Amino acid sequence: MTSAEVGSALIPEEALRGFCGECFRECGLSGEDAELVSHSLVQANLRGIDSHGVTRLGIYVKRLRRGLINPRPDVRVVGESDATLLIHGDNGMGQVVGVRALDLGVSKARKSGAASVGVSNANHYGAGAYYVERAVREDLIASAYSNASPTMAPWGGVDPSIGTNPFSYGIPAGRHSPIIIDMATSVVARGKIILAAREGKPIPEGWALDSDGWPTTDAQKALEGTVLPTGEHKGYALSLLLDIMSGVLTGAGFGQHVNNMYDDMDTPQNVGAFFQLTDIDRFMPVARFKERVDQMVEELKAVRRAPGVEEILVPGEIEDRIRRERLSLGVPLGAEALSELKAAGKVCRVDFEDYVVQVQKGGPG
Amino acid sequence: MTSAEVGSALIPEEALRGFCGECFRECGLSGEDAELVSHSLVQANLRGIDSHGVTRLGIYVKRLRRGLINPRPDVRVVGESDATLLIHGDNGMGQVVGVRALDLGVSKARKSGAASVGVSNANHYGAGAYYVERAVREDLIASAYSNASPTMAPWGGVDPSIGTNPFSYGIPAGRHSPIIIDMATSVVARGKIILAAREGKPIPEGWALDSDGWPTTDAQKALEGTVLPTGEHKGYALSLLLDIMSGVLTGAGFGQHVNNMYDDMDTPQNVGAFFQLTDIDRFMPVARFKERVDQMVEELKAVRRAPGVEEILVPGEIEDRIRRERLSLGVPLGAEALSELKAAGKVCRVDFEDYVVQVQKGGPG
Repeated sequence: MTSAEVGSALIPEEALRGFCGECFRECGLSGEDAELVSHSLVQANLRGIDSHGVTRLGIYVKRLRRGLINPRPDVRVVGESDATLLIHGDNGMGQVVGVRALDLGVSKARKSGAASVGVSNANHYGAGAYYVERAVREDLIASAYSNASPTMAPWGGVDPSIGTNPFSYGIPAGRHSPIIIDMATSVVARGKIILAAREGKPIPEGWALDSDGWPTTDAQKALEGTVLPTGEHKGYALSLLLDIMSGVLTGAGFGQHVNNMYDDMDTPQNVGAFFQLTDIDRFMPVARFKERVDQMVEELKAVRRAPGVEEILVPGEIEDRIRRERLSLGVPLGAEALSELKAAGKVCRVDFEDYVVQVQKGGPG
Repeated sequence: MTSAEVGSALIPEEALRGFCGECFRECGLSGEDAELVSHSLVQANLRGIDSHGVTRLGIYVKRLRRGLINPRPDVRVVGESDATLLIHGDNGMGQVVGVRALDLGVSKARKSGAASVGVSNANHYGAGAYYVERAVREDLIASAYSNASPTMAPWGGVDPSIGTNPFSYGIPAGRHSPIIIDMATSVVARGKIILAAREGKPIPEGWALDSDGWPTTDAQKALEGTVLPTGEHKGYALSLLLDIMSGVLTGAGFGQHVNNMYDDMDTPQNVGAFFQLTDIDRFMPVARFKERVDQMVEELKAVRRAPGVEEILVPGEIEDRIRRERLSLGVPLGAEALSELKAAGKVCRVDFEDYVVQVQKGGPG
């Protein structure tokens, strides 16, 4: 995991958290909220999901400073019943609104056995894994749905109309790491196409369509077109479902009405989210449930492997290993990521080097 | 939709329902339960999902007569809280247990806003669409998960270890037909591979692996191997999730411990299921929600179409059209399906021809 890229570095996670937190405080967030958002970003890096990690600091800061995100939202319950909550996010940071909604949902699920929580008027909430992992630590099963600005077409269509909406699920285990599912409903994250376009490389067939709806392996044309849904019409159906639950049902934007975080610098995003929480204990004792999950994991991992496969994995297992490694070695960041962080810090008048006192430089390429 | 196959026929849905219902009564089900199971089967045929329709009559009858399914189950609530229910199916027909569980969940969701319902000790419950459509008629949003006997390997594995577990979701709409998602977590239903094997035809690449884990286009070898999950590791993750919710959490069988309906004629299946119900009204007035779903549907359908595509569809739309057609014309059944039905009738001493008085014979091939 040590990086040999010139100018890259391994940054201790506390340093990253401290730096991002200070930037968010400088943008007007409360100390607690600043810490929460930076924690969520760094957690994504620790799990190896760098696309949802500190690389988002720059755009978050930009939107906060332009007044497109409310740094001090009055996140409020606008609808409530024994097993449901509807939360108005007051255009706060997605993570701030999401965690508040989730925590209220956790309390409700403890009391009533299950809870469904809708969120409107929020922003990009980072990686969905963050929320379901938080609930899993409370011995709950959790799902987290969110919608995103349109980059996929409906199946058979050409125009971006629906997000690569993410689907996340967390399940506690005993001896094993929890099962954490966190996936986009597209074949591949759009970030990978952006990277290929930057490097002038082609993309595999089946990832994207161009702006006329023809399959393309040209990364630039793909970016002007649409990303393909995973499992063809099945991924389209899933994406639609996530948009209905997090957007249509909550009163947030949906479909074409969710604004793009990068392109639309005039209007708030109005992202929605939907959490479902289930108290395991109402079905069976938590210890017995975890024993059964462990049994399942062990039975799956003991299966004969296909030619060339070294190990059978369960969802979340790789990410858990990366986290252990990065917690001890630091988060590897490339030259570009580092310079983006420094630039964001400059905007907030926070010096990156002040926080990162023990940068472990990678060797030459 | 008129079939030109020799020996095929268009059977009125009432005739099919009457016939199947009488068979189930002869197998010991109460009149009400017999009607329910036959209704669920015929509804699948009406929607065009013939793999889950009356073609299942034969195996259901066989298992009932062998005492592997309890025709008069004492379906009981063994766990309950404000927003959860755990139902013991007493080895009843999957449809009988499923509908009872769902209906209790509907009442609970009306009262508490949301409900999560687990089911254990049940059997194959047919098409998941049946349950979510039932809840949608009550203006609820519903999901239905179930597990199945193993025919997929974990991603990277070779041995059948997990079912092609189905994922179903129903969402009410206004002017438009409801959005009904009902999909297996495999690339393709195993029934299509069975059909290809029978006809000695190859299958497309990407559908299945042989028993050593190599990709195969040989349908027979595919049946001896495993079906591939939709969206590669993503479908594996989804299938795992559905098994955890419907099998692990409820106390039902899971993974390799769900018995095969066709192959295991000694033991009950111990299938599980999991329903989640959400009362729309706790989030926004139902009329407004339906208006928003309609708007979404119309915006998606208005999108520019890819080359060769005639129409953009939403999930459930094709099935709704087929239903309208089949309600008026009858359900098309091939010679083999007809002879299977007659054979099942014979076992139950119910004469198929008595029920199907107005069979509209298809023309010669």
